[in-house]
This record gives sequence, structure tokens and C-alpha cells, in this order.
Amino acid sequence: MMKEVSGGVCAPKGFRAAGVHCGVRKNKEKRDLALILSDVPCTAAAVYTQNKVKGAPLLVTRNNLSDGVAQAVICNSGNANTCNSDGVEIAQSMCALLSEYANIPASSVIVASTGVIGQPLPIEPIKAGMAPLVAALSYEGSGHAAEAIMTTDTAEKSIAVEFTLSGVNCTMGGIAKGSGMIHPNMATMLVFLTTDAAISAPLLQKALSADILDTFNMVSVDGDTSTNDMVSIMANGMADNPAITEENADCEAFAKALNTVTRYLCRNIAKDGEGATKLLTCIVTGAVDTATAKVLAKSVIASSLVKAAMFGSDANWGRVLCALGYSGAKVDVDAVDVSFASKAGEVKVCVDGRGVAFSEEKAKTILSEDEIEIRVSLHEGTGSAEAWGCDLTYDYVKINGDYRT
Amino acid sequence: MMKEVSGGVCAPKGFRAAGVHCGVRKNKEKRDLALILSDVPCTAAAVYTQNKVKGAPLLVTRNNLSDGVAQAVICNSGNANTCNSDGVEIAQSMCALLSEYANIPASSVIVASTGVIGQPLPIEPIKAGMAPLVAALSYEGSGHAAEAIMTTDTAEKSIAVEFTLSGVNCTMGGIAKGSGMIHPNMATMLVFLTTDAAISAPLLQKALSADILDTFNMVSVDGDTSTNDMVSIMANGMADNPAITEENADCEAFAKALNTVTRYLCRNIAKDGEGATKLLTCIVTGAVDTATAKVLAKSVIASSLVKAAMFGSDANWGRVLCALGYSGAKVDVDAVDVSFASKAGEVKVCVDGRGVAFSEEKAKTILSEDEIEIRVSLHEGTGSAEAWGCDLTYDYVKINGDYRT
Repeated sequence: MMKEVSGGVCAPKGFRAAGVHCGVRKNKEKRDLALILSDVPCTAAAVYTQNKVKGAPLLVTRNNLSDGVAQAVICNSGNANTCNSDGVEIAQSMCALLSEYANIPASSVIVASTGVIGQPLPIEPIKAGMAPLVAALSYEGSGHAAEAIMTTDTAEKSIAVEFTLSGVNCTMGGIAKGSGMIHPNMATMLVFLTTDAAISAPLLQKALSADILDTFNMVSVDGDTSTNDMVSIMANGMADNPAITEENADCEAFAKALNTVTRYLCRNIAKDGEGATKLLTCIVTGAVDTATAKVLAKSVIASSLVKAAMFGSDANWGRVLCALGYSGAKVDVDAVDVSFASKAGEVKVCVDGRGVAFSEEKAKTILSEDEIEIRVSLHEGTGSAEAWGCDLTYDYVKINGDYRT
Repeated sequence: MMKEVSGGVCAPKGFRAAGVHCGVRKNKEKRDLALILSDVPCTAAAVYTQNKVKGAPLLVTRNNLSDGVAQAVICNSGNANTCNSDGVEIAQSMCALLSEYANIPASSVIVASTGVIGQPLPIEPIKAGMAPLVAALSYEGSGHAAEAIMTTDTAEKSIAVEFTLSGVNCTMGGIAKGSGMIHPNMATMLVFLTTDAAISAPLLQKALSADILDTFNMVSVDGDTSTNDMVSIMANGMADNPAITEENADCEAFAKALNTVTRYLCRNIAKDGEGATKLLTCIVTGAVDTATAKVLAKSVIASSLVKAAMFGSDANWGRVLCALGYSGAKVDVDAVDVSFASKAGEVKVCVDGRGVAFSEEKAKTILSEDEIEIRVSLHEGTGSAEAWGCDLTYDYVKINGDYRT
């Protein structure tokens, strides 16, 4: 049985966290440096953006994780440390500073940055902030860390769940930042996961790599795949479960817990997309196969016109058909059913690729909720998929029309 | 020598046009039915959307053009006649009605529709409008036709040029509608071209199919490929030039005239994108090959984040690098130079994939113009390409948040 608990990344045993304002950002009210530290070394895994332009921190992290071991995450917001000539050096300095102050190997650090691309990241504020950051570490510090990694996010994204492995209680927690430049490809956004379960590094990587295919890779806020996307997980084994070293029932239970945490974070990243007022979920069923269903669901969720229609609570289903049609995936357009649903009900708007009469009033009521499902049935096979996105609003334009200043 | 002339699609000899309000739209001030008629039969060619959902008029037009002959274009705005069970029948009725009133074969009609998808198109207003439409035909009617095909367009898009073939003066004209759902794939938007040059149908199709690869396929307003895109051309031979029947110098001159007309319409469709305040041109040079350059240029022009930054006159070049990086095309990200230019000057912002110091004030001045060039140099080869788009604005959201009502 899985149970949601409080505490975020500090819910699992032996993880402390902190978030402080160090000065990368000008606004002194905004925490901009986050730390997650395990009491003991962890097996660790991560996945990264597929953008050919990769943030320097990702290169350093990938190198540090080559042995499958980590003990801490350090992350600043306000500057992506990407497309700078000294980027790798700065990211390495962040690891070295943490090594010095927290007394762990520099190669055990997962380092990340998020914010503007192409502006040099000064090391001074991070250096100055390191002592206060380490001093602030707390077993109740997840909230501060979650806050410190936010950019244009309006809400913290945090979750933790309890689950059992061979009868032993284990816990997994996660925090995330999302908001803009969200259209992941194989990895996504910044997501830091912790667990006190014991699991080998290869199986941890395998579980994470498999999970993101159905979770973070199915989220789109604006179609732009960031240079700095990363999802990492650290497992410190302090739950004292029999270590997972093969693909057994515990491994499956672990994957299920992981999926619960990541799905929650996905939905909340989409819901808090830049300027968003609504969470959109596109559920495709009856496709020829899963891969096809995924392409179709993501095409609908990424369509600017669908997103704008949802902002206006307008049941403009022709745009859903249009997005299915240009997705590049196999679809029998004469066998598509579409309905819109929310907690206010469901309205069928298209059957066999043709419009059907429906109550515009009822549709408006359904689409005025803040969580909308776009349901697409294809009658071609058993492939299904779910993708998450948000509406396109004035505020998205406002936020991104003048992001740097 | 090529010379721009007035008259739009009626500039070539023997073409009349008209545009009336027939009642597909409620607003009586808005013309909603357009007609272009040649005095004599024409060789004709067209290209169509690659969206799997295709508007019924496209299916009927493709069938009518199978013999390479046409004499008229009929087009309504306000309703796309797509995803309706009686769509083909309605489109055929439009051809039959025109056949009756204009005394030409129904199979010589290019029929098109643009507007909302998935609402039945009533034939009654079109039937009632046919007599007034044909009565209104005029050799000065291009403007009314251009107006009648507009949807959310704010400006008519029209051009004509004179050119010579074997010493004989010929003329080509074109009108277009664009605005939203603009991200063509092999064909695009609604564009109707006319010429009095004599050219065989196969060479006309070949010239058109080649031309769109560098023109209409390189335009993006919002990433959504419409179901109803079409570019058609009719050549009535009334200029009395020696008919083009092989790929000779005249054929090249014809292609050049065609390209002048289509480039002009592309730029104007992009500039009048829904809500747009600026025309964006991304020019990629030095790519490994042309195909790569095209993918890169189009990725930049289609990025929501680049588009929003341009709206805010914000020299946020990191988003350009990001869009190059996720395009899927081969690019050495450490050898990318980027500059922004307009008639106010040019500012280099990135060299070898790294930011360089630049005057924010100068950049702001350059980006405050209404035509912006994003110049990307790659130093990898000789491939180059140009793509056109527009900024992302509050008005795009406004227009599309409640398009149907």
C-alpha cells in the first residue's frame, strides 16, 4: 500500500535540505541556492536533456555520476550557467565548495542551474552562500530547497510517499521546478528525488530511465526543450530494506512508488506552466500502439491553438483533430471520437471524425474548470497514452516577453 | 527585368475577380465569397496540406485538377468545410453552382474554404450569392477577392509582377490569406496565383512544387499545420509567349517570377500572423547542407520563447541557441554565431556558442523595429536557408482564446 506523507525530499530517512538567498538573484526575498544532503553515500541515477546545447552543470553531473554514487544535490536558480565559456569550471567550483563545507567528495555532487542562458554565472555569491547554506541544513528543509530552485514557478512542487519493500517501510520524496521551456525529450526540467530504499545503481538508473518515458517526456508547456533539464534520484539505503539487486517484486514496487511521485510532479509542473490557469490532460486510447498514442497525445497538448482555446473555455475540437492530423503519427481520421471532461462532467463533441450536436453551455461549464481532460478514442488498437500540458494565456506572453529584465 | 505592378490576380491578361458578402459570415460588412475567373481555360497546378485531416474542398480540387486544367477559383471564408459528413458534397455543389452561373465545366473549378473546422457549411448562402458574385466580376476585382478570403488577417496580401519570356511581356499576380494555424508542410495557407504566361501543366506543377520548398514551407506563425492549406496557380497563356514546354531559359525566368511573388506573400503572411507586431526572418548560413539549414531556421522561427522575447524586444539569444539545439538537426553548438539586425543596425550577441558583451540599449533599439532578422552563422559548410515568422503577443492569445464565438 502506498501512502502520501509530508516532508518532500526530507521524508526519506537521512536526508537534510536547505535553501538560502546567496545573491545570484537580485531579489533578496527569493532563495536562490538549494542543497539536498544525505547522511551517507547513495546509489544515484539521472537523465538529461536531449538538447544538443547542454548546460555546463549537466556535463559535470554526468561525469560525477559515472560511478553511480552521489551524496548531495546543489542547485542555483537565476542563471542557467549555459553557453558561457567558463561554465564547466564554475559548475566544478560549486562541487568543490560543497565538498569543502559539507565534507563529502566533490565527485559525489549532483550540480544543476536554472535561469537565463548565456550570462556568466559569478561564483562569488555561491561561495559566500555556502557556509550559511550548509549551516541551514535541516531534516525539515525540503520546502526551502523547493523554493530555491523555482524560477517563474508560482507554486512549490513537492511530494513524498511511503511504500514497502519485502515488508520494510521505505519512503521516496521529490521536488521539482518547471514553468517554461518545458517540452522534454528523454529527460526534463529539474527534478530531484530521494529515497531511503536500498537499490543498486544500475537498477536505479534503469527504473528512472523507464519511468520518464511515460511521465516527464509526456509533459509540454511551450514546445521548447530546455538546455538544462535533469531528473536525478539518490537512494541512501537507510530504510534497511534488503537491497534491490535484481528485477524482482521489490523492484516492481519501487518502480510503482517512483511512478506515483513522478506522475504527481508532472501534473504539477504542467499545471504551473508559465501563465497557466488550467491543467490539460490528453488521454489517447485505441491507437495502433503505445508509441503512436504518445505522439498523438503530445501533439494535442503542444498545439498553441488547442491551448489558447482551452484558455477561452472554447470547445473548439476541430483544433484537436487538426493536431492529430499533423502529428505525423498513424491515425484514421474518420474513426476519431473526441470528448472534453472535467469534474463538471463530460461532453462528446466529435464521433467518427465528424462533429456532433452538443450543448455549448454544458461545454463551457466543463471547460471552465481548472483541470481539463481531452479524451481521444481511435478504435484502431490497444495503444494508449496520457500527456500533460496547460493553457496558453496572456501571462505566458507577459512572462516571456521580457524575462531577462 | 522584373517590375512590380498593381492589380493583384487581375494584373495578368484575361483574369477577372470578385468578392461579395453572401452570408456564411454573420457580419454583413465582411465579404465572404471570392471568385477568380479566367476568360479562357488555363493550365493549372496546386499543392496541398500534408495534414492527414484534409478539408473536403482540397479533395474535390485535387480531383478537378487531375487533368491539369482549370478556369476559376471559388473560395469562401468563415467556415473551413472540414470534418463534416457532407463536406465533399458541399464542395462539389460550390463547383456545380459556379459552373451553372459562369458557364464553365464544374471540373475546371479550384474550390477552397477557410474558417472554423467541424461546423457544417450551409450551401444556401453560397447559392444565393452566386449570381451577385458572377455579376460583380471585374478586371479590377482582385482587392475584393483578397478581402473575401481573409479570416483573422488584418491586411490584404496581394502582389503582381511583370517579367519577360522570349521577349514577350508576361504578368503574374497572387493573393493570399494567412494569419493563424500557419506551419505549412509541403503546401500552405490559401494562396491563389494567376499568370498570363503559357506553360504546360506538368512544368507548372513542377515549378510550383519546387518553389514552395523554399517559400511557403519556411513560414510558421504558430506551429499548427492547417487542414485546408492550398497554393494554386492558373496560367491562361493570354500573354502569347511561346509556350513553355521544356526546362529552358523561359522556364527559369518563370520560376524566378514565381519566387518573387511567393516570397512577397510569405513575408506578408508571416508579418500579419495572428496578433503579430513584427516580422521575424531567421537566416541560417554555414550549415552542413541546405536541409539542415532549413530545419534550424524553422526551429528558431517556431520557438514560442524566441517569439515572446522578440515581442518584448529582448535580445535573449540563449533561446535561439536552445531552439537550434533541440531542432534535431546537426549543429556544432560551439561554433554558432548569432546576431540580431534590423534597419536600425546589427548587434552581435553570441560568438562560438558563447555570449559576448553588447549594448543592451543598442539591442533594444534594433529589436524595436517591425522587421527583425535573426542571423545564425555556423561555419560548418555552405548550406543556408531563410524562414519567416512573427512574434508571440497578447493578441494571439486573445484571438485564439475565443475564435468561434
